[in-house]
Amino acid sequence: MTAHDQLTELRSQIDEINMQLLDLLSRRARIVTEIGKALDELGSKHYDPAREAGMLQELEQANKGPFSNETIKALFREIFRASLALEEQQARAKIQVQRKSPDERTVITLPDGVTTIGNGNFQLIAGPCAVESYEQMDETAAALAARGVKIIRGMAFKPRTSPYEFQGLGEPGLQIARKVANKYGMFITSEIMDKSQIDMMNDYVDIFWVGARNMQNSFLLRALGGINKPVILKRGLAATLEEFLYAAEYIVSSGNPNVILIERGIRTFEKWTRNTLDIGGVAVLKLESHLPVVVDISHSAGRRDIAKPLARVARASGADGLMVEVHPNPPVAMSDAKQQLSIPEFNSMMDDLAALG
Amino acid sequence: MTAHDQLTELRSQIDEINMQLLDLLSRRARIVTEIGKALDELGSKHYDPAREAGMLQELEQANKGPFSNETIKALFREIFRASLALEEQQARAKIQVQRKSPDERTVITLPDGVTTIGNGNFQLIAGPCAVESYEQMDETAAALAARGVKIIRGMAFKPRTSPYEFQGLGEPGLQIARKVANKYGMFITSEIMDKSQIDMMNDYVDIFWVGARNMQNSFLLRALGGINKPVILKRGLAATLEEFLYAAEYIVSSGNPNVILIERGIRTFEKWTRNTLDIGGVAVLKLESHLPVVVDISHSAGRRDIAKPLARVARASGADGLMVEVHPNPPVAMSDAKQQLSIPEFNSMMDDLAALG
Amino acid sequence: MTAHDQLTELRSQIDEINMQLLDLLSRRARIVTEIGKALDELGSKHYDPAREAGMLQELEQANKGPFSNETIKALFREIFRASLALEEQQARAKIQVQRKSPDERTVITLPDGVTTIGNGNFQLIAGPCAVESYEQMDETAAALAARGVKIIRGMAFKPRTSPYEFQGLGEPGLQIARKVANKYGMFITSEIMDKSQIDMMNDYVDIFWVGARNMQNSFLLRALGGINKPVILKRGLAATLEEFLYAAEYIVSSGNPNVILIERGIRTFEKWTRNTLDIGGVAVLKLESHLPVVVDISHSAGRRDIAKPLARVARASGADGLMVEVHPNPPVAMSDAKQQLSIPEFNSMMDDLAALG
Amino acid sequence: MTAHDQLTELRSQIDEINMQLLDLLSRRARIVTEIGKALDELGSKHYDPAREAGMLQELEQANKGPFSNETIKALFREIFRASLALEEQQARAKIQVQRKSPDERTVITLPDGVTTIGNGNFQLIAGPCAVESYEQMDETAAALAARGVKIIRGMAFKPRTSPYEFQGLGEPGLQIARKVANKYGMFITSEIMDKSQIDMMNDYVDIFWVGARNMQNSFLLRALGGINKPVILKRGLAATLEEFLYAAEYIVSSGNPNVILIERGIRTFEKWTRNTLDIGGVAVLKLESHLPVVVDISHSAGRRDIAKPLARVARASGADGLMVEVHPNPPVAMSDAKQQLSIPEFNSMMDDLAALG
Repeated sequence: MTAHDQLTELRSQIDEINMQLLDLLSRRARIVTEIGKALDELGSKHYDPAREAGMLQELEQANKGPFSNETIKALFREIFRASLALEEQQARAKIQVQRKSPDERTVITLPDGVTTIGNGNFQLIAGPCAVESYEQMDETAAALAARGVKIIRGMAFKPRTSPYEFQGLGEPGLQIARKVANKYGMFITSEIMDKSQIDMMNDYVDIFWVGARNMQNSFLLRALGGINKPVILKRGLAATLEEFLYAAEYIVSSGNPNVILIERGIRTFEKWTRNTLDIGGVAVLKLESHLPVVVDISHSAGRRDIAKPLARVARASGADGLMVEVHPNPPVAMSDAKQQLSIPEFNSMMDDLAALG
Repeated sequence: MTAHDQLTELRSQIDEINMQLLDLLSRRARIVTEIGKALDELGSKHYDPAREAGMLQELEQANKGPFSNETIKALFREIFRASLALEEQQARAKIQVQRKSPDERTVITLPDGVTTIGNGNFQLIAGPCAVESYEQMDETAAALAARGVKIIRGMAFKPRTSPYEFQGLGEPGLQIARKVANKYGMFITSEIMDKSQIDMMNDYVDIFWVGARNMQNSFLLRALGGINKPVILKRGLAATLEEFLYAAEYIVSSGNPNVILIERGIRTFEKWTRNTLDIGGVAVLKLESHLPVVVDISHSAGRRDIAKPLARVARASGADGLMVEVHPNPPVAMSDAKQQLSIPEFNSMMDDLAALG
Repeated sequence: MTAHDQLTELRSQIDEINMQLLDLLSRRARIVTEIGKALDELGSKHYDPAREAGMLQELEQANKGPFSNETIKALFREIFRASLALEEQQARAKIQVQRKSPDERTVITLPDGVTTIGNGNFQLIAGPCAVESYEQMDETAAALAARGVKIIRGMAFKPRTSPYEFQGLGEPGLQIARKVANKYGMFITSEIMDKSQIDMMNDYVDIFWVGARNMQNSFLLRALGGINKPVILKRGLAATLEEFLYAAEYIVSSGNPNVILIERGIRTFEKWTRNTLDIGGVAVLKLESHLPVVVDISHSAGRRDIAKPLARVARASGADGLMVEVHPNPPVAMSDAKQQLSIPEFNSMMDDLAALG
Repeated sequence: MTAHDQLTELRSQIDEINMQLLDLLSRRARIVTEIGKALDELGSKHYDPAREAGMLQELEQANKGPFSNETIKALFREIFRASLALEEQQARAKIQVQRKSPDERTVITLPDGVTTIGNGNFQLIAGPCAVESYEQMDETAAALAARGVKIIRGMAFKPRTSPYEFQGLGEPGLQIARKVANKYGMFITSEIMDKSQIDMMNDYVDIFWVGARNMQNSFLLRALGGINKPVILKRGLAATLEEFLYAAEYIVSSGNPNVILIERGIRTFEKWTRNTLDIGGVAVLKLESHLPVVVDISHSAGRRDIAKPLARVARASGADGLMVEVHPNPPVAMSDAKQQLSIPEFNSMMDDLAALG
């Protein structure tokens, strides 16, 4: 028999074994499903590490090679994991933020019943880093409204690195924001830092905002799952996309489906931008989740001189909108002076976007 | 005149100008101090960006070269910054976590009046990732107590990436931890996740613990500033050392000086360890701050097979202690299975440390 | 005198001192320029740390406050640095890759005299990760040529992590690439790994390619400065934008102005993409440099399912082109199987780009 | 039958299937081994992606559930991978830098036949960042020799970010280093940047040094595999440990077993140290490889004020030595001024280490 004939013969043996393995694996899976039901009746958890350890030990003792014990254990761990995954398929189907079909999308409608996010349009969220005064908000809102912006930043609680930095105006800041938003027919988004603030803030804000530092504050996330207003969730500055989606899941699984994800740049070694905008991450989020995704072009860059290309990039990425900081007089802003756009700069950026069609 | 003579002559002119600059800068600084007082009387902030912008504009108009306007503005911005720094010297002197002299150290004494952290000794904090049962805690505590460990992890609230993962036993877990700690004369440290938990947890724990995800939860930090028990503060997984110290400052400036810093590894690209232990950061923290610093050798590595060298490293670094996860049966642990030491592994690590003397 | 009057008076004193400081700094700068000339005559270096140390010591001795010695030394170090910078202004003006005016751009013309990069158009560079066979290259080139692509990857030397991985076909690979490129009227870009390869490769390639691993191989960069073909320079996987531009400067300052920069994603903690595409960095490079910039949408993502949004993003960012890996049968590719596009996927991406207009 | 009885029954069925699976997997593995031999006879590669794709397609068609096709394909891909791994076991056994037993270690002996690295002792490598003059080298060497240091840095080619920075003295610098080393009975290590330098440098240096920027310069690594002097290999600033070991494998597999690994800090977001010393990585390298590992406490920190704790840490980590930059007058050094130790600082560090015993 030539080497070639022998190869053909051996390969057909492999094919046969493959089918036998498939048959055994399927039978095994069906039994595991029944075990799952029995465990449910007994009120026991499905995952039983001691049972797994026992099975692995038996396999190790029975193994005569040629696979090493380590390889056999690794293969069976994969089989166990697949079986467990099967049992937990319903559980997994419950990961609510995961996109189940290409067309699935969460569309968030604001109180006017007309303004939406996630519906294929491109929304702008804009405004100063922080509410500083009525005049500042009024001047900004007028300019934003003139360009059709419907959602204004009305930040009154600022999470700051140092306890000695400006921490926001607090509730009076919210009152200013509300008054100005009403004047121009706009909606307010404002950062919440602790679940104890929900009731108070609920009187003022249209969209709650969870900052990067609180992305994994599960007590806050769960509490926001109990309200009926949309929540903007910012990616933590070193959060993986997986962690980001699970953070959203905390809110959604607690009852509030209206979550908007914001990519705001991740922390890397690069110093010419404040953070590194993860635009590939935006594309992946749009693939993996049905939630709307917005690109923060201010914190990701930390500099205003690339606002125009980043706005174009945000639009091209398939995101549902962009967030940009705008201030009537950036050099004297109480925070984020380097990255806020002046009103003429904002208008110029809007012209640039409009030219794209 | 030779080039050499000319050089000497020119350099003496420079020396003279240097002295004149010094004189002007000093006079300027004295006037700025008086301005600061006047502003205080007027109740105004010292930092006035519009005034700065005006001064820079005047200098720009007056500048005839050879320095470019940009250089002149950069130099004066440095001068402004130095002046502002002078005004804020008292403010800065108030950064309480900063070490003011080489000998300054915060020594934390536990309720027995004997056990201390930060006093030049090397303390161990050990125990399982999470409280799972009385038996698990009892077996662990017995082993730890036998090696002189005084502080045991009694974690009942687990911040988890997914809402579907084990979230801890809650208050019943604290009751188990308290009972076991009392039995062996140990102190409990336990993670707090939200300020609403303070009163309840205060009944059980000896040392509050703030996890990496909450390092910048300023509402929680401030609330912990109001209690009279020590607080362990973990570094966020992508927090700079500066941000870490400012987070501690939130607690200390709110009234609680007893903060223990834990370095637990930072998030990097490396995959063979779960995180990258920043041992250089530990050395820098000991230089910059008087607070005790502890090294977490479990989360930083994410693998138990390098526990011994990391324990030796923690000791050598000048840290005030180490934190290690120990579980009676790591493979079946409900979380962090890969990194918890078994009791024999823990004993072996202790033998290794003891051999160092 | 009221506090307000006093403030006005003090501020006018400050204004006067500012002008005196400006005058002194300017005089100082002029003398330093003369010193530079004297040093040139003497053949000495301009930077003289011992002289600086001496001046700082004198200032320290003369300083009576209120600035601390440390502040005074820091301020004067800034002044020294500015003076040195002035002397080196001509040197700095020589940083050739830096954009001197908003309109400055390097336009690279390929041998047909028609195809250009950097001229406001959007060029595609495409082809397989590596040359594997004539058939593979021919099939790919036919598909690319059909969509107007002029530049094909003809990689015959593959830098690989392990010495046991496929290292490329070597010169026979270049022969295949040349034959195929000629057949379809295309240009070849191919990676060079060592300066000893220049002469041999010069016979085959139209555009030399320096990989991420060699971005700071200054011997190679300088050698490529001596040839008269364009060079594509990839950003190192953890190189800052500053390091990237300086690497280009090694080539340009050695005589070859025709450098094309490729952003290919940087190494971060994120795992759902192979690297993190630094699109903000692309925008900054276009601001800071006149060199053409191309976006590699294959290595940055490491997955083909986001090729379309990334292609749109590359176009929107202001980049001069994109690089994409295309293979007739990605699953059996000898490298980068996960990220290469099949020909239908490539066509679909091109349709998508074309729809943008 | 109770749920409990049923559970027992179902679990015994699972146990039986496990054994059948083990049997089939083992038979399959034996056949794959024979296939490997047949392929060798035919001169074909073992890995055949088209064959795999075909098998997966057949399994997909035959699969009737309950596992999804995706799960089945994933499981079989694991089985294929294990089989391939078995075939390649001999290949893998050839990864020469991998430690095969706990006691395996590479001991490198220097030309005096006495000085060793990797033999359980703790060696110092010290000296200035760059050779600047005979006097500088002489003064440094005298101080180092007085403390028993045998290996001195004699760097004459400096890889620099900018082409306009000091690039080293070149061959004259090597002549200085050689003369001084001979005077004090020391060995020189010096950085090589291109394989064309080997012959020239071979006349002067005792230990070749490959810098971080060249860690993956495979042409240089392979060339150094052909010489009979030890090679120090620095970890690239964003290289994973796996990439680092494979880089060493390029040298070792090319014929030179005498490679010394240097951990020098990795690039992260932290700014208070120049890089982040990966001390956990050192511990992992000592586990995974038999090569000596040295800790660079200068580049990892970028600051001299933590040299003492880092030296103690290096010793405690199980590393085979440390590398520290020492300069007679650090403030005027032509490079790395901030991190080089003065001679008194070096002596103080040595005293501190000596006190450890």
